[in-house]
Formats: sequence, C-alpha cells, structure tokens
Amino acid sequence: MVKIIAIGEPMVELNAFTQGRLRDVSYFEKHVAGAELNFCMASVRNGVPCSLIAKVGNDEFGYNIIEYARGKGIDVSMIKVDTEHPTAIFFIQRGFPIPMRSSSVYYRKGSAGSTISINDLDLEKIREADIVHTTGITMAISDSAREAALTAMKEAKMTSFDTNIRLNLWSPEKARYTLREAIKNVDILVTDPDDAQIIGGIKDPDEAFSFFSSLGVKTLVYKTGIEGTFVFHEGRKMLQRGFHVQVEDPTGAGDSLSGTFVSLLLKGKPVEYAISHAVASATLVVTVRGDNEIIPDEESAEKFLKEFK
Amino acid sequence: MVKIIAIGEPMVELNAFTQGRLRDVSYFEKHVAGAELNFCMASVRNGVPCSLIAKVGNDEFGYNIIEYARGKGIDVSMIKVDTEHPTAIFFIQRGFPIPMRSSSVYYRKGSAGSTISINDLDLEKIREADIVHTTGITMAISDSAREAALTAMKEAKMTSFDTNIRLNLWSPEKARYTLREAIKNVDILVTDPDDAQIIGGIKDPDEAFSFFSSLGVKTLVYKTGIEGTFVFHEGRKMLQRGFHVQVEDPTGAGDSLSGTFVSLLLKGKPVEYAISHAVASATLVVTVRGDNEIIPDEESAEKFLKEFK
Amino acid sequence: MVKIIAIGEPMVELNAFTQGRLRDVSYFEKHVAGAELNFCMASVRNGVPCSLIAKVGNDEFGYNIIEYARGKGIDVSMIKVDTEHPTAIFFIQRGFPIPMRSSSVYYRKGSAGSTISINDLDLEKIREADIVHTTGITMAISDSAREAALTAMKEAKMTSFDTNIRLNLWSPEKARYTLREAIKNVDILVTDPDDAQIIGGIKDPDEAFSFFSSLGVKTLVYKTGIEGTFVFHEGRKMLQRGFHVQVEDPTGAGDSLSGTFVSLLLKGKPVEYAISHAVASATLVVTVRGDNEIIPDEESAEKFLKEFK
Amino acid sequence: MVKIIAIGEPMVELNAFTQGRLRDVSYFEKHVAGAELNFCMASVRNGVPCSLIAKVGNDEFGYNIIEYARGKGIDVSMIKVDTEHPTAIFFIQRGFPIPMRSSSVYYRKGSAGSTISINDLDLEKIREADIVHTTGITMAISDSAREAALTAMKEAKMTSFDTNIRLNLWSPEKARYTLREAIKNVDILVTDPDDAQIIGGIKDPDEAFSFFSSLGVKTLVYKTGIEGTFVFHEGRKMLQRGFHVQVEDPTGAGDSLSGTFVSLLLKGKPVEYAISHAVASATLVVTVRGDNEIIPDEESAEKFLKEFK
Amino acid sequence: MVKIIAIGEPMVELNAFTQGRLRDVSYFEKHVAGAELNFCMASVRNGVPCSLIAKVGNDEFGYNIIEYARGKGIDVSMIKVDTEHPTAIFFIQRGFPIPMRSSSVYYRKGSAGSTISINDLDLEKIREADIVHTTGITMAISDSAREAALTAMKEAKMTSFDTNIRLNLWSPEKARYTLREAIKNVDILVTDPDDAQIIGGIKDPDEAFSFFSSLGVKTLVYKTGIEGTFVFHEGRKMLQRGFHVQVEDPTGAGDSLSGTFVSLLLKGKPVEYAISHAVASATLVVTVRGDNEIIPDEESAEKFLKEFK
Amino acid sequence: MVKIIAIGEPMVELNAFTQGRLRDVSYFEKHVAGAELNFCMASVRNGVPCSLIAKVGNDEFGYNIIEYARGKGIDVSMIKVDTEHPTAIFFIQRGFPIPMRSSSVYYRKGSAGSTISINDLDLEKIREADIVHTTGITMAISDSAREAALTAMKEAKMTSFDTNIRLNLWSPEKARYTLREAIKNVDILVTDPDDAQIIGGIKDPDEAFSFFSSLGVKTLVYKTGIEGTFVFHEGRKMLQRGFHVQVEDPTGAGDSLSGTFVSLLLKGKPVEYAISHAVASATLVVTVRGDNEIIPDEESAEKFLKEFK
Repeated sequence: MVKIIAIGEPMVELNAFTQGRLRDVSYFEKHVAGAELNFCMASVRNGVPCSLIAKVGNDEFGYNIIEYARGKGIDVSMIKVDTEHPTAIFFIQRGFPIPMRSSSVYYRKGSAGSTISINDLDLEKIREADIVHTTGITMAISDSAREAALTAMKEAKMTSFDTNIRLNLWSPEKARYTLREAIKNVDILVTDPDDAQIIGGIKDPDEAFSFFSSLGVKTLVYKTGIEGTFVFHEGRKMLQRGFHVQVEDPTGAGDSLSGTFVSLLLKGKPVEYAISHAVASATLVVTVRGDNEIIPDEESAEKFLKEFK
Repeated sequence: MVKIIAIGEPMVELNAFTQGRLRDVSYFEKHVAGAELNFCMASVRNGVPCSLIAKVGNDEFGYNIIEYARGKGIDVSMIKVDTEHPTAIFFIQRGFPIPMRSSSVYYRKGSAGSTISINDLDLEKIREADIVHTTGITMAISDSAREAALTAMKEAKMTSFDTNIRLNLWSPEKARYTLREAIKNVDILVTDPDDAQIIGGIKDPDEAFSFFSSLGVKTLVYKTGIEGTFVFHEGRKMLQRGFHVQVEDPTGAGDSLSGTFVSLLLKGKPVEYAISHAVASATLVVTVRGDNEIIPDEESAEKFLKEFK
Repeated sequence: MVKIIAIGEPMVELNAFTQGRLRDVSYFEKHVAGAELNFCMASVRNGVPCSLIAKVGNDEFGYNIIEYARGKGIDVSMIKVDTEHPTAIFFIQRGFPIPMRSSSVYYRKGSAGSTISINDLDLEKIREADIVHTTGITMAISDSAREAALTAMKEAKMTSFDTNIRLNLWSPEKARYTLREAIKNVDILVTDPDDAQIIGGIKDPDEAFSFFSSLGVKTLVYKTGIEGTFVFHEGRKMLQRGFHVQVEDPTGAGDSLSGTFVSLLLKGKPVEYAISHAVASATLVVTVRGDNEIIPDEESAEKFLKEFK
Repeated sequence: MVKIIAIGEPMVELNAFTQGRLRDVSYFEKHVAGAELNFCMASVRNGVPCSLIAKVGNDEFGYNIIEYARGKGIDVSMIKVDTEHPTAIFFIQRGFPIPMRSSSVYYRKGSAGSTISINDLDLEKIREADIVHTTGITMAISDSAREAALTAMKEAKMTSFDTNIRLNLWSPEKARYTLREAIKNVDILVTDPDDAQIIGGIKDPDEAFSFFSSLGVKTLVYKTGIEGTFVFHEGRKMLQRGFHVQVEDPTGAGDSLSGTFVSLLLKGKPVEYAISHAVASATLVVTVRGDNEIIPDEESAEKFLKEFK
Repeated sequence: MVKIIAIGEPMVELNAFTQGRLRDVSYFEKHVAGAELNFCMASVRNGVPCSLIAKVGNDEFGYNIIEYARGKGIDVSMIKVDTEHPTAIFFIQRGFPIPMRSSSVYYRKGSAGSTISINDLDLEKIREADIVHTTGITMAISDSAREAALTAMKEAKMTSFDTNIRLNLWSPEKARYTLREAIKNVDILVTDPDDAQIIGGIKDPDEAFSFFSSLGVKTLVYKTGIEGTFVFHEGRKMLQRGFHVQVEDPTGAGDSLSGTFVSLLLKGKPVEYAISHAVASATLVVTVRGDNEIIPDEESAEKFLKEFK
Repeated sequence: MVKIIAIGEPMVELNAFTQGRLRDVSYFEKHVAGAELNFCMASVRNGVPCSLIAKVGNDEFGYNIIEYARGKGIDVSMIKVDTEHPTAIFFIQRGFPIPMRSSSVYYRKGSAGSTISINDLDLEKIREADIVHTTGITMAISDSAREAALTAMKEAKMTSFDTNIRLNLWSPEKARYTLREAIKNVDILVTDPDDAQIIGGIKDPDEAFSFFSSLGVKTLVYKTGIEGTFVFHEGRKMLQRGFHVQVEDPTGAGDSLSGTFVSLLLKGKPVEYAISHAVASATLVVTVRGDNEIIPDEESAEKFLKEFK
C-alpha cells in the first residue's frame, strides 16, 4: 500500500471567535494545525496512510497535538516529545483588515518543533515512503529543520513540496535562495503567483511551469485565486475553477489542497479527479474555523462536486 | 374564523453550533421542530389558528415541545403524552459535505410520535377544520401514522400535503406507491422535482402539474431551487423567484413555505400574495438555525418583500 | 495639531448573538456605541484627536462607556457623570424582518445623555476645535440637547453633521423643520436619499447637492446604497462605489464613514483618499457586531483598498 | 378547582453571563421574570392555575413575556398590550460586591407595566379567585399600580402579599406608610427581618408575628437567612431550615418560596409540607440564572427533600 | 506488560450547558462516554493498556467515539462498526431536581452497541488479557450483550465488575437475578449500598463483603457516599474518605474510580495507593462536565492527594 | 496627592473556559494581566494614581494591554512599544490536577517586556513617586529587568515588593540569592510561607518577620492560606482571616491584596482597614476568571466586609 511521510511543525491554533482585531476578540477557539499536519489529514482522509515527522513540547499543547493527530488516523510514532522547548502556538485574526481573509500571529520562536534535525529522521522509513512532503515553512523555521527537510527530500523516492512562503519567518531573499535550491529535489510542486514572484520573478502560469520544470519539477499545481488552480502534469495543462462559498477562515485551505491532490495522485486517480477533489477540499476548509477537521473523504468530495458542478 | 389542523410528529432539534461533520461539533443548540409543527407555526404567524395532532413522550423533550408550541400560539390540546415511548429528536449537521446545505440524523425509531393512530384522532374536530395538512414524513414513520393521516385526509373538508420524501425513512418504491395513493385525497400539493421524480418519474413543472392534477390535485406549489417556485392555481401558472441571502441552515424552509402559502390562501389572500409571502418566509428560515422561530407575520413579510423587490 | 469635538449621547449596545426576532434571542453581546462616539473612534483611529461632549449615568454602563472610550484614545475629559439619570442603552435586532439589516430598540428616554444642555458646553474648547461634529440624533433626543448642539455649531470654526434621522425619536415634520435650520450652520454634511427626501423632498444626488448647498453646505457626502457614495467637494463630484462583503450588522457603518471622511479631510488628505478610506471603514463595520471596534487606521484601510481595488 | 390571580409587572431579565461588575460583562443571558410572574410559575408548577394581571409593551420583549408565560402554563388572558409604553427590562449583576449575591439594575421607569390601573382589573374574576397575590413592588412602581393592587386586595376572597421592599423604587418612609396600610388587607404575609425593620421597626420573628397579626395578618412566613424560614399559622410556629448549595444567582428565590407556599396551602396541603416545598423551591432557584424555570413540581421537590433531609 | 480488556457500549454524551430541566437548556456540550470506555480511560491514564470491545454505528457519532478513544490511547482495534444500527447517545440533566446531582436520558434502544454478541469476541485475546472488565449496564442492554459479557468473564484470567444498576434499563428483580449469577465469575467487585440492597438486600459494608465473598468475590470496593469508600482486600478492610470539592457533574466518577483502582492494583501498587488514587480520580471527575477527560495520571493524582491530605 | 509607580511585565492572559487539562479545553477567554499591572489596578481602584513602567510588543496584544490599562485609569505614559519583540502571553489551566487551583503556562521568553532595562526608566518620575513597587517576577525574567527594578528601588522614596517566586522562571537558589539582596531595599514586603522557606528557610510568621526585618523590611504582609494574613507594622502584629467563597480562579489574588494594602496605607488609612480591604479584594478576585477586573473600590469592599463580618 502507498504511504506518505510529511515533515513539519504541528501547532496549536487559537482561532478568534469573532472577526476583527485580536485586541477586540474576547474568546479563542482551540484547534490543531500546521501545514504538514494539515497535509497529512488530507492524505489519511483520502485513504493514504501518512506519518508526521515532528517534535512537540512535553506540555499540554504537545500532547494535544499527538492525541488529536492519532485520533484522526495520522501515524504519530515519529513525533518526538522534547522536554526542553515548548510547543509552538499561533493565533488567527479573521476579517481584518481584509474581510474574508485571515492572518496569523506566531509564538513559535525557540519551539520544540523548530529544533528538529537530521538526528530526528528515521532514514530507512523515509526511503520506504512513496512520497515525502514538506513545505517552505520547514525551510524557514530553523537551520536544523531545513537541513533535516533537505536530507529527507534527497533520500526520498519521490517528493512533494508546497512553497508556503511566510514573510514573518524569513526575508524574500533568503526564501528565494533557499527554495530555488530545495525545489531541485521536488517532483510535485504546489505554489502560487505571490510565491512564484519571490522565487522566480514570475507570475504567469505558463512561465511558472517553464521556470519550475527547468529546476526539475515534474508536476506543478499553481493556485491563482482569480482564475482557478492550474495543473501541469505529464505534458498537459488543466484548470480547475474555484467554488463560491461563504468564507469563515481560509487558513489551511492550501494544505488541504496539496494533501488531497498528492494523495489521490499517489493512489492512481486521474489528475482531473485529483485536482477537482483538491479544490473541493480547500473550498470546504475556508467555510469553517479549524484548518483540517472538515477535509472530506472521496465520497464526500464527490457529493460536493456533484452539487457545485 | 378559518382553522387548520396538522398531523405529524414534532421533535426536539439539536442544531450543530459550528459547521462541519457532527463528530467535530462541540456544542449543539436546541430548538423545537418537525415538518407539521413548522407548518402550524407559519399558520399561526399568519393569523390562522392551527392545531397540531401529535404524540410526545412523557419526558423533558415532550414537555419542551408542548410548552414551546403553546407559547407560540399553536393549539396543543390535541397533543397526547405517551408514557411508553420517548420523544423523537434529531441532529442537524450543517455545511458538510455541501456548503450551505444541512442534513438530519434522526433518533425517532419507536418514538411516541410514530405510535400515533386513528385512535388519536378527534374526527369531529377534523371534519370542522377548514384544511387538514400533513406530509410524506407522517406517511413514512409508521403504519399506524399513515393510516391515521389517510383517515384524517379523507374526512377533511379540504387538504394540503407536502411530499417531503426522506429516503432515510423509507424506500423510493414505498414512497412512490404510498404517495400516489395519498395524493388522491389532496387539494393543495407542495412538492419539488426530486420528489416528483420519485413519485411520477417527472421533473418538468408543467408535466408535474399535469401528472398531479390527474390524481386530483387542484393547486400545485412546485419548488425548483434554480428557477424559483411555480404555482398552478385556478387555471393560472405563476413563478415566484427566490431571494439571495446568506445561508445558515435551510432546514424547515419548505415547511414554512407551505404553511404560509396555505394559511394565506385560506384567509382569502390572492395567490400571488400568498406565494410571495411564502417564499419570503422560507428565505428568512434559511438565514438562521431553528426551523420556525423566524417565520414572519404578514407585516414583516411585506417589509422583506419591499426590500427585495 | 488638528482636533475634533463631537457632541452626542454614547450608549451601551446589547447586540443579539443570533439573528431573528429579539424575543427568540437567548444571548446578547455588549458593546459601546452611539453615533458621535463612533465618529470619534474613526477620528482617533485616523490619528486626529477627538473629544466627546456627553453625559452618562453614575452607573455601571456609564463607567463602561468612559473606560471604553478612554481606552481607545478618545478624550473623555468632557464626559460628565449625572447622578440623577441612567445611562442610555439599546438593543440590536439583526436579520429580521430583512436579512442583512438591523434595527434598534432604545431605552434612552430620560437618560443622562439626553439631559445635556448648553451648561455642559465648554465654549472655549469648542471655539478652539478645528471641527465640531454632531448628528440629527442629538437634535432629536431633547430640547436641551438640540439647543446645546446648535449653540456649539454656531460657535465652531467649522462643522460637520450627519442627518441620521431616526423616526422612532421624532416625526418627519419635526425632523424636517429642525434639520433645515441646523444645516444652515453645517460645512460638511453627510446624508442619504431617505433623509434627503424627508428634509428636502429630493432623492437625486445632484438635486441634493443643489438643495443643501443653497442652505450653506460646502461639502456633501451622499450615501446611496446602490450606486455608491457621492462626494461634492470644491466644485467636483466624485463617486466611491461600495464593496461586497458578508454582512453581520450594518449598525454604525455610517458613523464610521463620516468620522473617517471628516478626519482625513481635516488632516489634509485628498478627498478621493478620504472617501475611499471612509467607505472601506464603513464596509469593515458591517462585517461585525459592534459599531466601532473594527474601524481601521490608514494603513489597514490601505490594505483593504488594495485588495478590493 | 382553586385558582390564583397575581397582579404585577413582568419584565425581561438580562442576566450577566459572568460574575463581577456589569461593565466587565461581555454577554447577557435573557430570561423572563418579575416577582408576581415568578409567583405564578410556582403556582402552576404546583398544579394551581394562576392568572397574571399585567401590561406589557407592544414590542419584542412584551411578546416574549406573553409567549413564555403562556408556554409555561400561566393564564395570560389578562395581560394587556400597551402600544404607548415599552416593556420593562432589568439587568442582573452577580457576585459583586458580595460573592453569591446579586443586584438588579432596572429600566422600568415609564414602562407599560407601571401604567396598570383599576381600569385594567376584571373585578368579577378577581372576586372569583381563591387568592389574590401581589407584592410591595407593585405598590412602588406607580400610583395607579398601587391603587389597582389595593382595590384588587379589597375585593379578593383572600390575599397573599410579599413585602419585597426595593429601595431603588421608593424611600423607606413611603414604603413603611404604604405597606402598613396595604397589609391590613393581607391574609398571608411573606416578609423578612430587613423589610420588617422598615415597616415595623422590628427584627425578631415573634415580635414580627405579633406586629403583623395586629394589622390583620393570619399567616406569616418570615424568612431569616441564618436560622431558616419561620411560619406562624393557625396558632403554631414552625421553622424550616435552609439547604446549603452552590449559589449561581439568588434572584427570584423569595418569589418561588411564596408562590409554592401559598399554592400548596390553597390546595389543602399541611403547612409543614408547604413550607418545606417552598424552601426546596427557593433553594433550587439560587442554583441557576433565571428566576423561575427551575421551580419544581411537587414530585421533584419531594426528591429534593428526600436527598437533603 | 499487563493489559486490560473492557466490554461495553460507548456513547456520545450531550451534557447540559446549564443546570435545570432539560427543556430549559439551550445548549449541549458533546463528550464521549460509557461506563467501560471511562474505565479504559482510567486504565490507560494510569499506564495500563486497555482494549475496548464494542460496536458503534456507521455514523458520525460512531466515528466520533473511535477517534476520541484512539486519540486518548485506548486500543480501538476491537471496536466494530455496525452498518445497521445507530450509535447510542445520552443526555445529561444537571442539578435538577437535586442540586449537584445529574440524571441521564438515553437514546440507546436498538443501538449498535446493544447488538454486541459472542460473535464479536476474540476469545484468544480475552484469554490473554490480565483482567477483563465489564459492568451491570452491559448485562442490561440486551440478551446478546449479557451473553457475550458472561462468556468473556468465564474465559478471563481475572475479572473486575462494577454493578452499575440503572433502573431505567431493567427491573430490580431482573438485575438481582442476573447480577447474582454474574458475580460468581468476579474477582474484583465495585458496588455501593444502593446496588447491594437490590442484589443482596444488604447495605452494611461488612455484610456486603460477607455476602459478595460468599459468591466468590475476592476484592470488594464499596462506595458509601457519606463515610467514604471501603476496600476489602486480602483479609484487610480499608476506608478512603472522600474529598470536598465544587460539583459540576458527578457522571462517570464511579467508572473512573474502578478503572483507576483496578489498573493500579494490576500494576502491583499497594491497595492503599490504588484506592486513594481511585478516589482522587473520581473527585476530579465530579468537578467537570465530561466523564473521563480529567482522569489524572499517577503524578497528577499524587499532587491532588498531597494538597487534600 | 500620593502616587505609585510599578515596574513589571504586563501580559495577555488566555484563561481556560472550562476546567481540566489545557488539551481538553476548547475555548479560551482573553484578559489582561501581569502581577504589577494587577497591583496598579488595585491602586487606582482605591483612588491612588499608579503608573506602570513596562514594554509591550508592537502587536495586537501590546495595544490590547495599553488600551485596557488606560481605560481602567492606569497611567500608561511610561509603557513603551518595542518593535522587535512580541508581547508576552500566558494560559491559565484551572482545576487540574488540584480543584480550585490554577497553573500558568507562559509564552514570555524573549518578550518585549523582558527587555526592559535601566534605559527605560525615567528616574526623575521614580524619585517623585511616593512608592515604587515591583515583584520577584521582574527580578526573574531577565538581567536587564532585574537591574532596572533594583535601580528604581534604590532611587525610590519608599518601596513595596511582592516576592512572587515562580519556579518556572528561575531556580530556588537564584531566587534566594537575588531576593535577599533585593529585599534590603524594601519597606513593605508581601510574601508567604512557601517563598519565605526558599528565601530564608523559614515558615513561621514571627520568624519570618524577624528575618525580613533584619534585612530592613519595615512592614511585612504574610499570607498563610490556612490561618489568614498576618501584618507586622509599626510594632504590632495583626491577623486578618480569609473568607470562604466559591472559587473560579485564584490567579491574581495576591497582586490585588498587595496593591490594595499598599495604596490604602499610602492614603493614610489604618493598617487594619488596609489589610481587611486587601483580603476582601483578593477574595473577590478568586471568584472570577480575570485577574483584576473585579478589584473593588473602597465602598464596594466595605459592603463585602459588612456581609462577611
């Protein structure tokens, strides 16, 4: 059976109960999130086992993450508990200054998750996995994390990668330099015009594919909000339009998209099927607080797509 | 003064406080609902007295229903308390797998409401009522309930009926057979293309009217989500378009539509007036959790229609 | 540095936690509001100091208002505490009978705020302020309040005024008579077709400008929901279109619009800049409960406008 | 069958969701209350029909009261809707400055309820009732209300009265003078040492009975927090001790005590039974927000008493 | 390593957010519970692996139970999903009619859990377990469940059993007859005077031990609310007094007590240690809604006991 | 007029909405706290102006603190905004593992507040203040903070100090060494047996006074949970017993006690008056979530004490 490994920092999310500036929010709703954990959720929901390589603190939030991920079916046997550093957390501010958009405030500096290093990797299992996935966030949180991620990518049979540039974690220059190198090891790349602009100075989908395939990328998923999501795969170019819904919090939508796309492709599903399910999944994620609970299984995504066709 | 009697099972509703799978919902909001109770609410809100013939359990939820309905002005003198069976309840899952849609999970098997039988009917009062209303749900929950409903329909001066096929209560075959028979006693029929497909193998509004009028239906209200709601009445065909609003939970909208339409028609209002108020009422219902609290009186519906004209 | 003084009654707002009739609402969320307090909030958020001349009761809600306004940076040194009368409060009913609209139920009769009189004015400070602002509400709540407001307007270097006719506070006749007189002292007028109809029997933007400029108004901000907001200023006519967002509660949007527009104009910003920020501000206000917390500063409004351009 | 009529102002209650000063409370929970409405609830819960003579505003809160009371089984046919005045409301501050105590902030001046007058009385029904009940609050809210209450008491077969002196409604002097006169028409009096001190300058239970019986009182219920509740009835003196529970909000406990005691006595229950049930009822009321929902029926009170015996 | 297997029906719990009658509760908080699942939670929290043999429905609540239990570390590999029957649920009413007490309303008739039978047992694993645990509830929910439980008990190396008589599930006569037979297979029995009265007509601790040991019980845990919990074990009799805390909901306390006691004894801890931890665990459970989340591990229980010593 | 300056880190507090492990908490309630901010709140509530010397981040939580403190009347003119470091936050876990107790989880490492240094001090204002207050927390969070605090203490006319040892911030050895030195500059010391044990190896009140007065302390407030709070002042020894209330969250009680005591003493109130008010204040704080909102003014504390006398 196919199997995925993701590497990255899981976090506890404190989502604003009401919209507006965080200072004016009275209540926060706790969730478990993190780009790679969200990816894993999408993978297991689509029936593909996924292990998360990560570190959490020896604290309530660390065990919260482990219990949640295990409950949802993610393999947590490679999540280590670090007794020296705390679990990372972040707050989500919703609807300010831009309605239907969210922003994150991190308390992740010096976190357990950022101390991950090559010593935390079980290379044998990494080599056995069908796909190893990580994101630009893991590249940005610490040198040791970046080194671990790059090592895993190099050892992997196949890799998927979401650029996920967060400018409150590093500078555009550092992101550009690091990601250009990293992408040389990537088979399936998920990115968008904003990140492509930083990495390659380009915005246009075709130019983006041209640029990234020159770095070695085989499959490109290119999320342009306005037109939809483009997929370049095995010589073809497809476009999956987005679906209009009421927005609660878009955080995590991209992770769900990449996790659904990669896991369905790995299961041997047609790429059109994979990308339509991926966009359905991302669309559901924006309708709720919480980054991953609502990610659909295949049957549920089919119902969604039948309705929105 | 005109007067309506409705026959059907009232239930306590547990509505998900947040959208997504029920497993991920932490809090539920309690309401009182049930297709025929919702119909009655629309009737009394429009100034037409309505009695509900029903049974509830001798338990907190049973008294909850009675107190709520009585408070809102429904005549509850024909609601019996059954000491042997519990009150039915149901849960509403919102926004999954389809955004802006809801689904129901029933705990109504063996409920007090489903034990209703011809013994629970006061035929004299049924014969005195101007209209007797019931729905396909009452036809589906038990043999005795179906028998009671059919008996009441036959004794009634006039009848209205909402097909309301719920495939988790019975099979399409059973629904088709039963409803074809039942509709022979119906004067005002409320249905939609999905149900018409099951009952008569048809979808088109004109074909639907042709089919149902051949069974004896005089007035047909035909709810097509996309185009609006058609009314066939006294040789005329009208279309009332829908109104675009933010959706919270569509549950109960259809009941409110039929209750408003039937009660206004009974009051002698023009059919255009009745159907526009009915659609306004249904539109308000989809903007909130709770199936019937928000049903407008005539003055409020006028304000709504003035705004949305 | 420029400085604004606003005169009007601040209130504690009890906002319905759920939509629908107030009778069916179980929980209310407390906020601090009032047309002129909202205006002041917009002013200080845009970096222009604003003092509120007002009276509150010697009670919890009175101190609530003072603590809130002071915390947010409004100068509260001219808010007096009245030991004889209570602080005014109001309830907001949302989404009934018109979805995405709200209505207010006031408990302000005999309130501390309505007893404000010329004795409560510090004329020296009023003469020093760059702009004195008030609204039609202050004209309506009591004779002494109207007298105080008119006196302040006459003493002021410059005035801005929002017609804000509330027909549950006075009759159209009284509003027309009073406001025609008041507007003779107004430099910057904010109004809309409904109010213009009452005051001058007109609806059309150009006619409105013609009418109000004949009374002495120099700058007119004319809010037409459908087309957008017109500004007539220094011989030019501009139109700022509205932005489509999900609506939670529109209460306070107009106050935020006028406060933002007036304060930015006073700071010397171009009128196009002022009106686009004003409409951005109003748009954010409709996305939340609470009339003023979400009012953006200039930098936040720029982000909003960049997104919605 | 026995029957009670109570006269007094029902109100909508906004109960602080969290303890502390009202200014620091973010959410309020809505309930329906009022001393005489609470009394009626206790009466109907104990199986004795009770009608409330009252006026409410033609507004959401007025209909809220009618729907709630009717739902719970109170006869609301004598509640009039006043189109000129608003329904009274009040806020409950809990736990400040004294833990486990509450205080009320009224918005009832000029309310519909306070305009009640002798014109609102159906004297025939008053004469038919077995007991007419009112409280010192009705004596305090307006001259017309006091006159109406006194008239009803004089016409009644039998009367019960709860002194309920609220010093934010009138002065001790006015309360003393008025209540001394009113009590001359009282058969069953419910009071406590604080009120007895104001009315008669006494605190001691025996002195209180001596004093009030000299005014014509036949049965005295004397609530002393510390020792318990004394009852002087038909030549006997009893003491019912209190029960120790966790306190949420004591508001309404006294009304529940008097309503339970009076209705059970009227049903012919022994006085010991009546007073123990009355104290059980009051004890339950202090464990929740909401003044009357939790009032037990006889069977529930028996369970309570069996546990706390 | 030692290992426990528990057999019994897990349920989704809807706990009243506020105290009082269920009819007056607006919100319900969802938890996962069930006597044997609670027992398993106590076991795994104390470091002893525990498998739950159970059936749930193929529905949201069924998967809710599996995800929750797996997340918390219970072995769920023997929980079967039944596509024919729904998952059982129950509601908790708190504080009425007895403050600080709760009662349960079940919707479990015909549930998936009650269809468990000997066919669902993996006898090999049952024989390997160090202790097999079940309760009187499993004996009461269906014939097949009782048969399965008895079979497992007979095959087990050692058994523990909690009488847990629920009179809304069976009659005292049936409970007496069934439990007398069942207890013949029990090594560690947990019960209380109410259940002992039904089973053996006795209340006194010593008589209870005499009676139950005559049936074959080796260790008796006898929970008397007032005096504390008695343990009869290896010829000794101990008493662990209770701890006074603020009560939120006592549901589940007994399960936590038995799970903690049995697992610690199995780990080889002294009986005094086991019973003090067991009572600490049960005490924490009564301070919250939710039957098992708060069950402490050994280190936390030590902190508790140090404080309350 | 007298005036106090406090030096220390304010924080945003996320208080668990429900009791138990943080992992099982779904919602968090935001408050503003910090030992010295709490102290300042008690001071201003008692009518003594208080300035907080502190640094916060240039982020939502930083402005949250400033707006809150300013609203409540604390002088915030000496709070600096640091654009490099984030505002500190902390979570409160309530009722686990010890009922009625709380514990804190800090995210304050590298926070803006901990970077405070002597450069942030306005020595002139410090010398003008009547009392300078700080706590052991400020001594522990960073070297620069400790240096700043010690400098301020040495420059001050008079000092008050609360030992407040938090063992998750430093070791007992470091605390002992540092605090022994710091206390040499202290006039009014607030501490308890646990801290006295660490600092001086003593527990007994009299020994504690002997020890601390040998270091130069003039007034000692010694909080022993069981017996009450001892005060040694001007040759006298007093004991103020505690008050029994329902506990929600004890966090902040000690700060409120010291702030009330010091400010009342500074106002010239008798020491008995000051300590009884201080204990009343601390008692109210334990009844709510939120460390300082409920701190009473003198009049409210008098009402409390009258009730609990």
